Amino acid sequence: MIRDLFSHHIKPMMSDDAWLIVQDHYDPKCNLQYETVFGLANGYMGTRGAFEESAKISQPTTFINGVFDKSETFMRELANLPNWLGIKLYVQKQLIGIDECEVLQFTRVLDMKHSFLAKSVILRDEEGRETKVEAIRFLSRSNAHMACMKLYVTPLNYSGILEIENIVDGAVMNFEDAPRFKVKHTELVENSAIEDSGTYMEVKTRDFGMHIGVASRVRIYDQQGKDIQNNRQFRAMGETAYEFVDCDVKQNETIVIHKMASYYTERDGAKDTIKPSAINDAKALDLDTIDGEYDRHIAVYEAMWDQADIQINGDFELDRAVRYNIYQLMSTASEHDDRINLGAKLLHGEEYGGHAFWDTELFMLPFFCYVFPSTAKNLVTYRYHLLNAARQNAKDNGYKGAKFPWESADTGEEECPDWTIYPDGSCHPCFVAKYEHHVTAAVAFGAYRYFTITKDMDYFLNQGAEILLETARFWSSRFEYNPSKDHYEINQVTGPDEWHEPVDNNCYTNYLAKWNINLGLKIAKMLKRDYPKKYEVLSAKINLTDQELTDWDAIQQKVYLPVAKEGKLFEQFQGYFDHVDVVIDAYDENDMPIRPEILKTVARKDTQLIKQADVVMLMYLLGEEFDLETQRVNYDYYEKRALHGSSLSPSIYSIMGLRVGNQGMAYRYLKRAAFIDIKNLQGNTREGIHAANAGGVWKVVVFGFAGVSVDKDQRLNIDPNMPNEWEDVTFKIHYQGTAIRIKITKDNEVDVKRLGGEPMDIVVKGKVLHI
Amino acid sequence: MIRDLFSHHIKPMMSDDAWLIVQDHYDPKCNLQYETVFGLANGYMGTRGAFEESAKISQPTTFINGVFDKSETFMRELANLPNWLGIKLYVQKQLIGIDECEVLQFTRVLDMKHSFLAKSVILRDEEGRETKVEAIRFLSRSNAHMACMKLYVTPLNYSGILEIENIVDGAVMNFEDAPRFKVKHTELVENSAIEDSGTYMEVKTRDFGMHIGVASRVRIYDQQGKDIQNNRQFRAMGETAYEFVDCDVKQNETIVIHKMASYYTERDGAKDTIKPSAINDAKALDLDTIDGEYDRHIAVYEAMWDQADIQINGDFELDRAVRYNIYQLMSTASEHDDRINLGAKLLHGEEYGGHAFWDTELFMLPFFCYVFPSTAKNLVTYRYHLLNAARQNAKDNGYKGAKFPWESADTGEEECPDWTIYPDGSCHPCFVAKYEHHVTAAVAFGAYRYFTITKDMDYFLNQGAEILLETARFWSSRFEYNPSKDHYEINQVTGPDEWHEPVDNNCYTNYLAKWNINLGLKIAKMLKRDYPKKYEVLSAKINLTDQELTDWDAIQQKVYLPVAKEGKLFEQFQGYFDHVDVVIDAYDENDMPIRPEILKTVARKDTQLIKQADVVMLMYLLGEEFDLETQRVNYDYYEKRALHGSSLSPSIYSIMGLRVGNQGMAYRYLKRAAFIDIKNLQGNTREGIHAANAGGVWKVVVFGFAGVSVDKDQRLNIDPNMPNEWEDVTFKIHYQGTAIRIKITKDNEVDVKRLGGEPMDIVVKGKVLHI
Repeated sequence: MIRDLFSHHIKPMMSDDAWLIVQDHYDPKCNLQYETVFGLANGYMGTRGAFEESAKISQPTTFINGVFDKSETFMRELANLPNWLGIKLYVQKQLIGIDECEVLQFTRVLDMKHSFLAKSVILRDEEGRETKVEAIRFLSRSNAHMACMKLYVTPLNYSGILEIENIVDGAVMNFEDAPRFKVKHTELVENSAIEDSGTYMEVKTRDFGMHIGVASRVRIYDQQGKDIQNNRQFRAMGETAYEFVDCDVKQNETIVIHKMASYYTERDGAKDTIKPSAINDAKALDLDTIDGEYDRHIAVYEAMWDQADIQINGDFELDRAVRYNIYQLMSTASEHDDRINLGAKLLHGEEYGGHAFWDTELFMLPFFCYVFPSTAKNLVTYRYHLLNAARQNAKDNGYKGAKFPWESADTGEEECPDWTIYPDGSCHPCFVAKYEHHVTAAVAFGAYRYFTITKDMDYFLNQGAEILLETARFWSSRFEYNPSKDHYEINQVTGPDEWHEPVDNNCYTNYLAKWNINLGLKIAKMLKRDYPKKYEVLSAKINLTDQELTDWDAIQQKVYLPVAKEGKLFEQFQGYFDHVDVVIDAYDENDMPIRPEILKTVARKDTQLIKQADVVMLMYLLGEEFDLETQRVNYDYYEKRALHGSSLSPSIYSIMGLRVGNQGMAYRYLKRAAFIDIKNLQGNTREGIHAANAGGVWKVVVFGFAGVSVDKDQRLNIDPNMPNEWEDVTFKIHYQGTAIRIKITKDNEVDVKRLGGEPMDIVVKGKVLHI
Repeated sequence: MIRDLFSHHIKPMMSDDAWLIVQDHYDPKCNLQYETVFGLANGYMGTRGAFEESAKISQPTTFINGVFDKSETFMRELANLPNWLGIKLYVQKQLIGIDECEVLQFTRVLDMKHSFLAKSVILRDEEGRETKVEAIRFLSRSNAHMACMKLYVTPLNYSGILEIENIVDGAVMNFEDAPRFKVKHTELVENSAIEDSGTYMEVKTRDFGMHIGVASRVRIYDQQGKDIQNNRQFRAMGETAYEFVDCDVKQNETIVIHKMASYYTERDGAKDTIKPSAINDAKALDLDTIDGEYDRHIAVYEAMWDQADIQINGDFELDRAVRYNIYQLMSTASEHDDRINLGAKLLHGEEYGGHAFWDTELFMLPFFCYVFPSTAKNLVTYRYHLLNAARQNAKDNGYKGAKFPWESADTGEEECPDWTIYPDGSCHPCFVAKYEHHVTAAVAFGAYRYFTITKDMDYFLNQGAEILLETARFWSSRFEYNPSKDHYEINQVTGPDEWHEPVDNNCYTNYLAKWNINLGLKIAKMLKRDYPKKYEVLSAKINLTDQELTDWDAIQQKVYLPVAKEGKLFEQFQGYFDHVDVVIDAYDENDMPIRPEILKTVARKDTQLIKQADVVMLMYLLGEEFDLETQRVNYDYYEKRALHGSSLSPSIYSIMGLRVGNQGMAYRYLKRAAFIDIKNLQGNTREGIHAANAGGVWKVVVFGFAGVSVDKDQRLNIDPNMPNEWEDVTFKIHYQGTAIRIKITKDNEVDVKRLGGEPMDIVVKGKVLHI
């Protein structure tokens, strides 16, 4: 058992191996990757897994979701906030640091069940002194403002004075390793001592002046629980708070350093409540405080896992990796706050600035709809709060209705930059914000999916319907009528495959737009019929007339979709088949396609090679609209041409492979997706968790192998397609208010149990079952 | 020639090898030592020799003499001010840094003649890109506010975009590597861009609120002198200013980065003049500015070297090392400012906080009196400015007159801490400030020496006489009458040998005190006789009566001096001979005494082992009061018991060895002293230059081997004692307004030439010579 590597201080807290992600040796070159992998989040904030004493290669960040700032950079991005992790230990002025000492023993473990990060190291300094440091840290899910750590320090071959710095570092920035980008998003407001012990720092964002406060306190106890802290001194060093303390240590006697930090922002209350709230939390620290907080923290997590866990028997590594992806999603999303969303890298890295993409609705939202419906509601409500901004965005671009931004932060304005800097430092225009419009359909898709899965009529009537009508309206204005061909087109547009941009009549976009308009018509009709008062108020509010609905209908009937002559194969966009045809025929050791040689001489955009699922994504989303043979034909064609340049791609090909009977690739794609961050398969885990992929992993297991779907009659279907590698898989979902546990064995036997909610009919392998 | 290691950009600027101190390979563990060795100073400020791109082991400091602050630390110390050195070069975001790259070639050279630091390195980054960087930097002696550097950057095997950060780092602190001590002495006032290009930072000290401003600017030129700087962006990152620029670079084509920084403080003018003055300097930067400043800078240094250089033929290494010590003294002292002094570590390290000790008067002042009399006047005038503080210090301690502090900064209050922190972090009382009083005699000695060497009657009448009378008065109040023995004693006192503290009747202190009282009596008598009006005013001002003078005389006649029974050997203090007698009998490879084994069992304070010259120091200073045999007896006794725990010791034993005919040790002691910092012989060069030792080196050459002294008739004597190793030695001195060049050959032939001033009689090897 992995926990046997830890002393009795930590071992009893640690879960079984199936819940643990382990780093078993130290290589500073992997620091940034592990900072992501070992990042912690609690729905309110996130802290990367940097070392307490700091390391030479490190990008520590603490983000609080919703605290954005632009300043000199391209876009409003999550502001790196004062880093609470700092604890430096010194013996005779020598830092007992991971990069300063010889590492004699090293283990770090993320316990997903209890959501804490643990470490156990033995460090030998230049004088030969050996110090054992064990530590745990967690961001409380009970009081989400609270960050806690305990360090167990044992001098193994010396006695003396241990000098300790408690550091809160406000001198952090974003993109510190990129000279052209590095940006400071906060200004210092206060850096002061808490009267008797501890530090308080307040900063404000530079654009909006939003205040953020963090109070910290340390206490040090000996093995008998006696407070042994001496010689406290506070130093405000510019933007960094240093609190010095020391204590006497004896060979082979362990002392325990407790540290608590509490964050509050103006998002939590009035400006003048921040400081007292944070200090109040920190001042509570005594011998038992962190243990108490820990107990409340794991109680929340245990309840969450009771809902969210998937147990896969038969493939231990994959079982754990799937759990890791679920852990990231549920750790980061908020059950309390409907004005924040999920960034494309979660709260684990600074790339993409914490912005929500279509990733939320099409990759992550399904998990939340089925597992944590109230959290899902927060995610969709976030979009509703920004509907006015989307209306403005449509207007600014010459369209009607609501056009959601490709990248969305707190204001709902477009946060996707118009410029890209290449690695060599040269600057090039970026056309994504200009041409990639399909996110608006994704927002509509998500709103509607949330409603269909949860049957949350309150949401639907007060938020969802308005979104669906305003997005339908956007698309109706986005289509252009081609009189010579008597059809509607979307020209100069980018589909999911961003390697071809812009194109005319991207199949995916045209189809989703048509679907969105149709859905608007359907919603309008339903509201008129079932909720006439509601419709009256809403249509008046958004100035929607029957004539406009008639116009929408006319448009959706004549949407142009490029299709190959044979009739089954869709052309990704108008003219795609005229590009150089290249078929992938080689795969690397991770089963990922190897870039064909031809790309050395032919530009990627001139080939049929694609970045990710595009036509296949369309058929995944709107499967009911295409017969299986059509889906198979398109899967076979595009799968051979997809290089999976986006982490969003493999999970879709996995599910679709299962749907069309190409099971062979499905399991390989799942492994690819499940281990993407644990094993740094994409090479960029350092920049954050691949959040959409994490949602994709859940989808592959539940929608793919377990075969969960919703049919045209809105009934839950279970039609499993279990891989040979598994003995069984068990998980829970919620559907329309009913909680269900599903267990599927290797031979596709399905065991379904209703755990709560109303009885309902579901369809298991084609047969209706009343549960 | 060393300069052949440099390209044509730097080679023509570089002096002959006799002027160059070289580091020929990079070892990060030696960084701190070389930061001291390669520190630059210009009488106004000093910057340690840190790398532009910063290194992992580094303590960059920029001190401006006179800018002190206390804050949370023990004492007012020189405040580490914003570091102007920062220039970081990146290719594709990779820092071309000394610790980040493979070092393919490395040379750093301090050119003492022109007072610049040069480097030439070739660095290979992880991608295999090789970049050559040559650089020079200097602190202008013409406009002492101005710091300048040029970097010549050549991509050796690539072309692309070079990204450059111009950094002014205000996030610096003092004692950064000591968790218990680290202290921030400034607060940020402003961190802003200069409108078109450049940075301006203003900070203020935390105690007195003294403002300090620094403006910086960079410009980048290609080989044709074309400005190639692109994409400037300014970022204020808290206390650090970042200015980003980039430029295109081509393989094997050199670009030149010019950087200028200008510092002003409230010591230079009103607060509102700081910013415009600094910015005005920086804005001047164009293609020729640094070259022009350099020409003016070296013109000043050439004139200084014309006065100060000592040429020793026959021992090249020693010749260069002696020059290095002279260079430090003359670089650091100010010809313009009489309110600053010389710190015990000069401006090259943070130890001792930039405080003046007795080191100034007894070790460094002789050099300035003989070589730069106007700078010497500033040093002695500094003490006069602080005379009132010394009076208060006497009063506070229950004495009369003026008691100068053991450590002196800007206010003249005692800056010697009452506490010492041992390396293990434990805290112990420090008795130096309480018991070590002989510095007051040293100040008197320095004032009188300055007067006798320069015959500066203006100084004497308006400053010196008052100091001499007030210090005499202090000592008269310090003596205690012992009625049973009918003599005057000084009990509970520490002499130069701080290993025995406190003691009763330290020989050195008692004798210097007696000498100081005697001198006061002599001055009073002379003033009454020659300047009765002056005396009337002065004695009224300080309330000095004839009765008090009579009392002084009574005291000085009955001062107790402990002497061994034989009559010649002085007892260092009362009871010293009762201590365990230990004689040094082993020396290390640097000819330094090895600590006797007995110290493992007997406490140092209980032995006769001493830290440094004490009785021997007395005889060195007041040689005319002791017959040669007495000096010899004491030298022989104490030399065998001196462990030279202070760097002040070897030079005194060297000169005294020559005086008493023990030449054997003299040359070894000189080498020990001359190389102390270049070779880090004391192991603590990282903490700054051993300033007193530097003065001691000059004294050994001029007073020791060249045999320069002043006899009782105030005539200059030259009685050389040349070592076998030398062919000849040549130097210049000023004596009583007359400039003299002295050349002495191996066989003690003396050639003296008057270069200016009035003719005078001097005594060469016992014969009077009129020059």
